[in-house]
Amino acid sequence: MIEQKQKNNEAREIIFGRNAVLSLLESRAETVTRVLVSKTIKPHIKSEVLDACRASKIPFDLVENSLCEKYAPSQNHQGVVAFATPVASLDLEDLIKILPPTPNKCLLIVCDHLEDPHNLGAIIRTAETAGASGVIIPKRGGVSVTGVVIKVSAGAATRVPVARITNVANTLKRLQEENFWVTALDMDGRDTLFKEDLPPRSVLVVGAEGNGVSQAAKKSCDDVRFIPMAGNVGSLNASVAAALAIYEWVRSTNNT
Amino acid sequence: MIEQKQKNNEAREIIFGRNAVLSLLESRAETVTRVLVSKTIKPHIKSEVLDACRASKIPFDLVENSLCEKYAPSQNHQGVVAFATPVASLDLEDLIKILPPTPNKCLLIVCDHLEDPHNLGAIIRTAETAGASGVIIPKRGGVSVTGVVIKVSAGAATRVPVARITNVANTLKRLQEENFWVTALDMDGRDTLFKEDLPPRSVLVVGAEGNGVSQAAKKSCDDVRFIPMAGNVGSLNASVAAALAIYEWVRSTNNT
Repeated sequence: MIEQKQKNNEAREIIFGRNAVLSLLESRAETVTRVLVSKTIKPHIKSEVLDACRASKIPFDLVENSLCEKYAPSQNHQGVVAFATPVASLDLEDLIKILPPTPNKCLLIVCDHLEDPHNLGAIIRTAETAGASGVIIPKRGGVSVTGVVIKVSAGAATRVPVARITNVANTLKRLQEENFWVTALDMDGRDTLFKEDLPPRSVLVVGAEGNGVSQAAKKSCDDVRFIPMAGNVGSLNASVAAALAIYEWVRSTNNT
Repeated sequence: MIEQKQKNNEAREIIFGRNAVLSLLESRAETVTRVLVSKTIKPHIKSEVLDACRASKIPFDLVENSLCEKYAPSQNHQGVVAFATPVASLDLEDLIKILPPTPNKCLLIVCDHLEDPHNLGAIIRTAETAGASGVIIPKRGGVSVTGVVIKVSAGAATRVPVARITNVANTLKRLQEENFWVTALDMDGRDTLFKEDLPPRSVLVVGAEGNGVSQAAKKSCDDVRFIPMAGNVGSLNASVAAALAIYEWVRSTNNT
């Protein structure tokens, strides 16, 4: 969905799909350099996209469908492709500066090397809906905020602050200094997720599909919880497991 | 994606599209009776499908594209069509017979005309992991248990009992006779999902993406709950919303 290309020494993203591009034009039009719209798409979709481009003064071209195909090969681009400068991602200290200060409630999600962009996108979508203040991902290893992530997040990945960090364990320690209680979600946990309420200022650490949270990260956590599962066969999708933990924080901290 | 046809009084599914048919051949080849492959599709796709048929010893025919069109009219069949016997699905009374009797705890999930096979697959996966006793879907309208559903469910759709019903409202009334408390998940709810515990014998009704639970179904529910959402922009994916409700039942009924 997004591809990093070097051109004139500048990275650019390629974002595609009607909703992903519309969401991008809505939330960070200033990063969009050009939009390609296939001549063959339905007139009302064409109008919608072109109107959004005009509203934000973004140049667009009506092109052959094959050109969309060229930039988003074998993808469901729906005849709409945008070029943009990559999502400005924050470093940890930038993120900390914009968080609600102690003792306000605040939720952050740390993704410890997720591999599937669908899971990262789904987690960012749920995080936004639950009122989380940010999502933290590693700079190296694991999936980054690509076009697929933005599309699956229903645009949330352009609205929720996403910070990129170099080391998960050090990040957790730094957040503890900011009065966060750090809970990892892992089958190793001693108590279930539902054992007791999550604190108002919480960091949730979600591990990679399959491998879970790394040992180094777990050592820096205040608590490790597991999600109860029936039987021996099934397992939870990583984004579903994260959603349960995120909403456990909502349940714990809201007067619902 | 699937169409039920009567032939010799036996229902058969028509599944189409390259990935759907490949997924079907991978996950439940034993149910596939024949595959049609258009002579006009790209050679590498043709080889891929034919190899998959050969590997599972499924008969196939190379046919004119018009024949694919006949079985999957106005659909994006991509020149690949499969016939299969449907996943063994139960009717409501069959399902009731195999449920834990009153007063044992028991969870059922009713999907009120979901449209996205990924969501149905994800819900069945979570249902299995949470220890639900069955998933109920309408016979007509809404997505059925296709190869995509099975794939996304990580195989759970072949292990969790799935019953197919003709009328959602009547089904809910019948389940109330079996001492189930029926809770719909809908933004119309008066209380949040987390307001109070869900009863041990619970039916959760999950609505279609966008439209939610139908008015007729809602009238037959004992309770309607909503999931709290922050801000005005984000929304939850249908399978995430269902997972939160499913695990609210786990939280309510387990000594966690």
